[in-house]
Amino acid sequence: MRILVIGCGAAGATAAQFARKTNRAADVVLLSRESYGEYSKCGLPYALSGVVADFDSLIEYPPAWFRRFGIELRPGTDVTGIDPVGRSVQMASSSDGGEQQMDYDSLIVATGARSKVPPTPGALRGDGVLESGIFTLRTMDDARAIAEHVARASTGMIVGSGLIGMEMAEAMVENGIETYVRLRTHVLTGMIDDDIARPIEEAAESKGVHFIRRTTVSGIRREKQTEVTLRSLDNDEESRHRVDIVIISAGGEPETTLAAAAGCSVGLHGGIIVDRRCRTSVDGIYAAGDCTEYPDFVTGVSTGVGLGSVAVRQGRVAGTNAAEGDECLADGLLNSRTTELFGLEVAAVGPTRNELRQAGIEPIVGKATGSTLPDYFPGGTSITVKVLAHPEDGCILGAQIVGVEGAHQRANVFAAAVLNRMTVEQFLQMETCYAPPAAPTLDCMTLAADAARIKWKRTARPGTPASE
Amino acid sequence: MRILVIGCGAAGATAAQFARKTNRAADVVLLSRESYGEYSKCGLPYALSGVVADFDSLIEYPPAWFRRFGIELRPGTDVTGIDPVGRSVQMASSSDGGEQQMDYDSLIVATGARSKVPPTPGALRGDGVLESGIFTLRTMDDARAIAEHVARASTGMIVGSGLIGMEMAEAMVENGIETYVRLRTHVLTGMIDDDIARPIEEAAESKGVHFIRRTTVSGIRREKQTEVTLRSLDNDEESRHRVDIVIISAGGEPETTLAAAAGCSVGLHGGIIVDRRCRTSVDGIYAAGDCTEYPDFVTGVSTGVGLGSVAVRQGRVAGTNAAEGDECLADGLLNSRTTELFGLEVAAVGPTRNELRQAGIEPIVGKATGSTLPDYFPGGTSITVKVLAHPEDGCILGAQIVGVEGAHQRANVFAAAVLNRMTVEQFLQMETCYAPPAAPTLDCMTLAADAARIKWKRTARPGTPASE
Repeated sequence: MRILVIGCGAAGATAAQFARKTNRAADVVLLSRESYGEYSKCGLPYALSGVVADFDSLIEYPPAWFRRFGIELRPGTDVTGIDPVGRSVQMASSSDGGEQQMDYDSLIVATGARSKVPPTPGALRGDGVLESGIFTLRTMDDARAIAEHVARASTGMIVGSGLIGMEMAEAMVENGIETYVRLRTHVLTGMIDDDIARPIEEAAESKGVHFIRRTTVSGIRREKQTEVTLRSLDNDEESRHRVDIVIISAGGEPETTLAAAAGCSVGLHGGIIVDRRCRTSVDGIYAAGDCTEYPDFVTGVSTGVGLGSVAVRQGRVAGTNAAEGDECLADGLLNSRTTELFGLEVAAVGPTRNELRQAGIEPIVGKATGSTLPDYFPGGTSITVKVLAHPEDGCILGAQIVGVEGAHQRANVFAAAVLNRMTVEQFLQMETCYAPPAAPTLDCMTLAADAARIKWKRTARPGTPASE
Repeated sequence: MRILVIGCGAAGATAAQFARKTNRAADVVLLSRESYGEYSKCGLPYALSGVVADFDSLIEYPPAWFRRFGIELRPGTDVTGIDPVGRSVQMASSSDGGEQQMDYDSLIVATGARSKVPPTPGALRGDGVLESGIFTLRTMDDARAIAEHVARASTGMIVGSGLIGMEMAEAMVENGIETYVRLRTHVLTGMIDDDIARPIEEAAESKGVHFIRRTTVSGIRREKQTEVTLRSLDNDEESRHRVDIVIISAGGEPETTLAAAAGCSVGLHGGIIVDRRCRTSVDGIYAAGDCTEYPDFVTGVSTGVGLGSVAVRQGRVAGTNAAEGDECLADGLLNSRTTELFGLEVAAVGPTRNELRQAGIEPIVGKATGSTLPDYFPGGTSITVKVLAHPEDGCILGAQIVGVEGAHQRANVFAAAVLNRMTVEQFLQMETCYAPPAAPTLDCMTLAADAARIKWKRTARPGTPASE
C-alpha cells in the first residue's frame, strides 16, 4: 500500500507520521514544495522579532527525521496533477523540472493556504508578484525576505490587524521600526469582540504602534519608499503614508487547485470539504489543514480551517484513516485560539458575537474582570472573561479572555464547556481549583458565567426552577 | 422571615450574603464564635510564611462589611442548642456568658470543622488542650499562637503531610526553621498519587525539608523542647526527635455537635448529609461547608467537604434556598484542588488512584511530561499530566498535574471533562489553544489523554471503531 501526502506543514507532516504509525508496511511518501522539512509557520513572527533565536530553530522535523521515521520525504517537489480514477499524481522536480508520476492507494491533500492579497492598485508587478518592499507572511522564505528588508527599514505598515498582522506589528516594534497598522474596526476581528480587543489596542499603542482607524487601502505606489494610500471608511478622504516596508496581512486562501481539479468538493470559504474522517468527496482522497473547511461546532456553518491545533488533529485523523486505521474528528470546529501581544495574553473559543449574530443568534453576554488571585495575595494580575451563551437554553457558545496571563488555559476550560454544551448554570456549579497562590474561590470564569446566568434567568426563562 | 446562619467561614459568610440578596426583606443574622468577620483560613500559612504581609490582610469581609450589606453579624456568640421543632437556637455570649434564644424560619449550619488530633500519649494536657509548643492550624487564633512560637523556634516538626501540613512546612522553612515532616507514604496522599507527589517531595528536600518516612507518632513529651517519638511502620523501631515546635496536621473533623443533636443525619465521614439544595434531613435546616458531606461525583461515595471552592458554592446554594430562592449544587463533588509548594504548582480533580481502587475501579492511567511551550520557544517549563480513566467506557475520572506553572487551570479543564463524562477519545479530539508563546499544538493534557486512550483501546475494547 502506498500513502501519498502532498504538503509538509503541520497537517501534512502529522498525517504522514500517523499513516506510518498505523500501517508499518505501507510506503508513506511526503511531497513537499519546500526543502526544510516541517517547521512552525506560527513561529515565524517570533524569529522575526528575535524572541526565537533564528529561523532554523523553527524546524521541528528536519528531512533527516522523516528518513529515520521511515517516511520518504521528497522536498522540492511540485505536484502538478491528480488522477483520482487511476489513483496517481503527476509531479515535477523544482530543481531540474523532471516530471514523474506516482501511484497511490490513499492520497492526503495538505496543501495549506496562500496569503490573500486584496486587489490594490500598485501592489502587484505585472507578473503577479508583489512589488519590492511589499510582503505577505506565510512561509519560511517569506519570513527570510522580510527579515532582510526589516534590517534596513525604519518605518513600516501592517495592512490588516488579524493574528499574524498583530504578531508582525509586535515583531516590527521589537526591531525598532515605527509601525503603523491599518484598522477597519478593531484588532483581531476574526478572533474576539471589540471590547476584548480594546486592552490589546491600548497595550499596542503604549508600545508605540500607530493605528490608522476605519480606513481601507486604495492604492500603493513604490518609489524609494512605498507610498500607501488609505481611504477613510467614514468620508472617503484619502491620506498618504510613506514607509520602508509594507506587510499585507489579509488572511489566507485555501490552496485547493489540485484537489478541486481532481473533483474534490469545495465549500463556501473555498476550502476542501472533509467529513469526520477527513475524507473528501473523492474516493481515496483525504484532506487536512488550512486547505480544508469544516462545520463550526456551534453554528454548523462551514468554516475555513486556519489553526495549527486543528491542522495537527486533522492530520492525525487523515493519516490514520488513509492507512486504514480508524480515527474521527470532533463534531465541529471550536476554534480554540490564543496569542500573546504586547504583554497581554488573549484567548477565545467558539464564534465571536458578530459570527453568532450572522448565524441568527443574539447571545447573552456575561463579563467579569478581576484578579487571578485572591485580593489579599500578592502577584495577582487583572483578567477579563467574557462568556457568550444561547438566549434560550443558556448553553455556553463561546468565551473570550484577555489578561496578563492565564487566558489560554481558561479558554480551554470553555472549550470543554462548549463541546459538552454546558449551560452557564452548570458552569457556575462546576468546582474550579482554589488556593491563595493559584486562584480565588470563584474564578473570573465562574463570575462571568454567573453574570450571563443572571441575565439569562431574567430574560429568557423567568421563574424557571434551577435544573436538578 | 428570619434566616439564621451559624458560622462565619467561607460557607457561612457566603450563605448570609446570598440569603440577603435573595430576600431583601428577611432578617439575616450571622452568629460567629470569632470576632474577625470572614477571613481566609487557607491564607493562614501564607501570613505565617510572610508572603501575605499580616493576619489582618486575610480578613475579606470585616464586621463592618456585614453591617453595610444589611446582615446582622453577632461575633463572640456560641450557639449552644437548636430546637428544630420550635425553630429556635439557644446562644451564649462569649464575653458575658449571657444566654439568649432566637427564632428562625430557616437555619443554615456552617460550623466548619475542627482539627483532628490523633490519640497520642503526651499531646494533650489533662483538660484536653494541646500541650504548649504543640499546635494545630485551623483558625486565625491558632495561627497567631503559632506565629508567636515560630518567632522563637529554630527546629520544628510537622506531623502529617497533607495540604495544610505541607503549606506549613514551607512556611516554617521560610521562617528559617529546620523542618522535619513525618510521612506515612507520600505527601498530599488525599490529593495526588505517589508519582505526582515525588517532584514535590524532591523540591521540598531541595529547600531543606527533612522527611521522616514510613513512621507514625507513638508519643510526645514536653520539656524545654518537645520530644516526639516516631515509630517505624516497617519494623516498629522508635526514634526520638527534639524540636521547638510541633504542628499536628492530621486533617479536620466536621463540627456537627449542634446539628446532630437537632436530628440532622450525619454520614460516614461524620459530616452533615446535605442534598443538592443543601437541605439537611431536618426541615428548615440547611448546611454548608466543611461540616457537611456530599457524594463524590465519580464514585458516588459520600465524601467529607474540605475545600473553600466547595464551601462558597454550597454557601450560595444554602443561602439562596434558605431565603426561598432556588439554587442547586452539581451532582457530586469533583474536588478540584490545587496548591503551590516549594516552587511547584500541583493540582488535581476527581478521586486519586487509591480512592478509585477502593471504589472497585482499576483506572487506566495516561501520563505525559512535556513543556508548556513548543520546544523552540524560550521560557517553557516542564509539566506532567496524569489522566485516570475508566477501563470500560474510557471516561475521564480524574487528573493530576504538577509543574512550575499552569497546573490549576489544566485541572479546571479536566474538571469540565469529568463533570461531562468525556472519554479520553473526546478529550483528544477537543481543540486546545495553541500559539508559540502560549502552548504547543498538542498540550500535555492532550498527550496524557492520548496515552490513556491507547491503553484503553488495547485492553478493554480491542477493535472497537472510533466513536462518531
